[in-house]
Amino acid sequence: MAEVVTTLAGAIASARSARREDGPVPRGMPEDVLAAAAESLGPPDVPADGIGADAALRRLATMLAEYGLDLAHPRAAAHLQPPPLTVAVAADTLASAGNASLDTYDSGPSAIAVERWVVRSLTRLAGLGERADGVLTPGGSMSNLLGLLLARDTAGLARGIDVRRSGVGALRRPVVFCSELAHFSVHRACAALGLGEQAVQPVAVDEHHRMRPEALAAALRGLGDDRTPVAIIATAGSTDFGSVDPLPELAEIAAEHAVWLHVDAAYGFGALFSERLSERLAGLELADSVTVDLHKLGWQPAATSALLVADANAFSALERTVSYLNPADDSEAGYDGLLGRSLQTTRRPDAIKVAASLLAHGRAGLGRMVDVCHELAVHAQRRIAAEPELELISPAELTTVVFRYGGGAHADPDHLDRINSDLRRRLLESGVALIGRTTVRGTRPDDAERVCVKFTLLNQTATAGDIDELIDRVLLAGRACARRTEEGAA
Amino acid sequence: MAEVVTTLAGAIASARSARREDGPVPRGMPEDVLAAAAESLGPPDVPADGIGADAALRRLATMLAEYGLDLAHPRAAAHLQPPPLTVAVAADTLASAGNASLDTYDSGPSAIAVERWVVRSLTRLAGLGERADGVLTPGGSMSNLLGLLLARDTAGLARGIDVRRSGVGALRRPVVFCSELAHFSVHRACAALGLGEQAVQPVAVDEHHRMRPEALAAALRGLGDDRTPVAIIATAGSTDFGSVDPLPELAEIAAEHAVWLHVDAAYGFGALFSERLSERLAGLELADSVTVDLHKLGWQPAATSALLVADANAFSALERTVSYLNPADDSEAGYDGLLGRSLQTTRRPDAIKVAASLLAHGRAGLGRMVDVCHELAVHAQRRIAAEPELELISPAELTTVVFRYGGGAHADPDHLDRINSDLRRRLLESGVALIGRTTVRGTRPDDAERVCVKFTLLNQTATAGDIDELIDRVLLAGRACARRTEEGAA
Ligand SMILES: Cc1ncc(COP(=O)(O)O)c(C=O)c1O
Ligand SMILES: Cc1ncc(COP(=O)(O)O)c(C=O)c1O
Repeated sequence: MAEVVTTLAGAIASARSARREDGPVPRGMPEDVLAAAAESLGPPDVPADGIGADAALRRLATMLAEYGLDLAHPRAAAHLQPPPLTVAVAADTLASAGNASLDTYDSGPSAIAVERWVVRSLTRLAGLGERADGVLTPGGSMSNLLGLLLARDTAGLARGIDVRRSGVGALRRPVVFCSELAHFSVHRACAALGLGEQAVQPVAVDEHHRMRPEALAAALRGLGDDRTPVAIIATAGSTDFGSVDPLPELAEIAAEHAVWLHVDAAYGFGALFSERLSERLAGLELADSVTVDLHKLGWQPAATSALLVADANAFSALERTVSYLNPADDSEAGYDGLLGRSLQTTRRPDAIKVAASLLAHGRAGLGRMVDVCHELAVHAQRRIAAEPELELISPAELTTVVFRYGGGAHADPDHLDRINSDLRRRLLESGVALIGRTTVRGTRPDDAERVCVKFTLLNQTATAGDIDELIDRVLLAGRACARRTEEGAA
Repeated sequence: MAEVVTTLAGAIASARSARREDGPVPRGMPEDVLAAAAESLGPPDVPADGIGADAALRRLATMLAEYGLDLAHPRAAAHLQPPPLTVAVAADTLASAGNASLDTYDSGPSAIAVERWVVRSLTRLAGLGERADGVLTPGGSMSNLLGLLLARDTAGLARGIDVRRSGVGALRRPVVFCSELAHFSVHRACAALGLGEQAVQPVAVDEHHRMRPEALAAALRGLGDDRTPVAIIATAGSTDFGSVDPLPELAEIAAEHAVWLHVDAAYGFGALFSERLSERLAGLELADSVTVDLHKLGWQPAATSALLVADANAFSALERTVSYLNPADDSEAGYDGLLGRSLQTTRRPDAIKVAASLLAHGRAGLGRMVDVCHELAVHAQRRIAAEPELELISPAELTTVVFRYGGGAHADPDHLDRINSDLRRRLLESGVALIGRTTVRGTRPDDAERVCVKFTLLNQTATAGDIDELIDRVLLAGRACARRTEEGAA
């Protein structure tokens, strides 16, 4: 372990000289950047002989500095991908060095204790009751998949069908409800779980991007007898807008129809750290399962996701006795691990960094970080609203703002689509700024989807001045792209 | 990053004083160890205020040292969980600190280059052709699941069924063939994917624990027209025995019946590093997909698994266009990432540590480590065979040995079962040794399953002397348990 520190220190020192010009992304076209990065690793073959740990690590550290992202840069504002906390990175090294696994007691006793501590702390923060439980997973997509798996198998059991044994075929035409804006991992999970993507029934949203409870209620009432409602998936913090579906109303509908309520709070969960914003998640405690991504609004390095459940019994769908891992007599003697809560066997103790971060910063410290990022988003929103060349599309609910470059004579929306996607790539290629994009449909029924740009603000060290500079860069890039489009049209 | 190193160095120094007595596991009953570990973290609640990064990290580092495993200890020999390489741990810290993600170009350009490099190096090592591809996953269980998902959706397409869209229901009574000794994650994957565990049709093994090709051929011939063969899963390195199914024969049968061949080489893949052992994996190049766990015979910290595929097109089942991640115009401009190869969205660049390790040690260096561990297993096997109180159950194919304490007058197999499970727990509770266990069925048809103990040897710094001492400890513990059982019987 002391060796690791020395090796690291050496690599970092030599990588420092490789630091490129100021900017969060490497300059250049993706193709060229990727080729240069690949080149620096040598031919893609396991070399016959090694070059030693120090040289290998220096090579990696240098290429990562040269061709990687700098998420701590004040103009990195693209994705739900935070610059991680120092304490979390250091704790993650302890996890790697120890190489404990969570499947059985004797693959990592202390790691199991840490995960239990973290899960309990999170279920309490979520307001779930004493029967709650949870497990860490490799990401929000996997947490959504796992929540949906539990919902699927529970829906089967309620109908006398053992889905785990007999497969999904016996479930009559399964349906999963979610808002039109649910994360695409819900669709992917339906495909993976054998329900098929056609099981997804999207429910309309209101003008604040929130699922309409009355539309959900109508859909459930209108469901044929030949359908099996498997789950309602609410989103608490939509990827683009940070909007939170009306959880109390949805929970009431779910209870009425005895359907599993899964809340995808991958993004929104972190708002619970903030006194100011936590109220937006009211009703979270009514969920059957909750997806939490602390590698988003929680400043952990990936992977740090959790699936929380209101009732530990929900995990019975995953229980398993394996002669080489958890035979009955060992389980009775307390040698059991967490195998029965996960689809994984070997499982890295990602909880170590979470525990370290929660202890180091406390709810107050993390809440302040959430508030800072929210304020940055509010600042961006105001500035965008005041800027005649920009159109504010969606205000700062959590830490994102969606807007559109649309100044001057470019009223043609197709032109503007092109300009907005061009301007983002232009910023990326010049290396000066990293912003996001998405498409947004207008509020009228026949409105088309339009390309917008987006800031996702998770850098708590950035300032209002940095945001202003970021917006200035967007304006410059927008004008340049508009000119090019005009010239093209002329 | 420099901060991380300083913080770490402090934590390690203070943890050193907490080091417990010599032994790979904390002494005590699991319940007590877990309670003490939990206690040291404080009440399971997000604290209102933080204690700062240094104090938090010291607390974690100390409790991990006190109540965790020491996999570098010469008497740690339980699971496929290696003491990780220094260079891999250090490189993993670079991954955490950078927090790149592999889903899109702009979430981590250099990380994408590294994963492509690693995947290409591994497919070449496996002898897969130039059309091969692959992706890193969070573990062998997930790699098996992903391989089976591709097989499932490919089997559907061959029959004109879009499983991804319509679900598994349209596949007529799916069947997955694997040996009786296949890892249980295959069964779990069938359950998760909606095929149901009843889809698994176990095929008999020979006396060397290898799938019988003629039994597989007969099963396929005997399959009713109303069944859909989805995949044949061969194991290259069974968990307990290290046995490798006869890949060339199985590949021939798979080709004849046009069924997907997945090879679970989670454990065995590492043998390819060794000149001496690589031949055992002959035929691997004939697979449609391969599971590789470098967190087993590859000395990486978890998670470091990969799914390799013979044909990159196999991933089309996972392709996806998402407006905020990979819209068509961005993809055309080269901004695409690896979203379409994984069920994950955010994905940690676990390839960084692999690249660093392959470069640092080369095939020769890793091959030597494999050979050393194999030799340790052969040494253990010889000593066990020569020891009248021990019965050798299975020789050292790769780096495991399975045996049974069975000396003296204790011919009653049920008594011996108890003694063998007791002796393992006794070693664990005293903290002096960490060994594995499993159950093995005899070779006669009506033989019962018997409890055995197992060494899994992945510590390349251990010596033959260490193995001898480990066996001495087993003998002592066995005798003590035998005495207790006798006294109980008397
Ligand atoms: C609302 C929401 N859910 C789920 C996910 C998936 O999380 P992950 O990227 O950790 O798989 C995301 C990712 O952005 C998200 O925004
Ligand atoms: C043969 C085999 N396949 C798959 C797995 C699962 O791998 P993981 O623990 O990485 O999920 C194991 C684990 O021991 C294994 O031995």
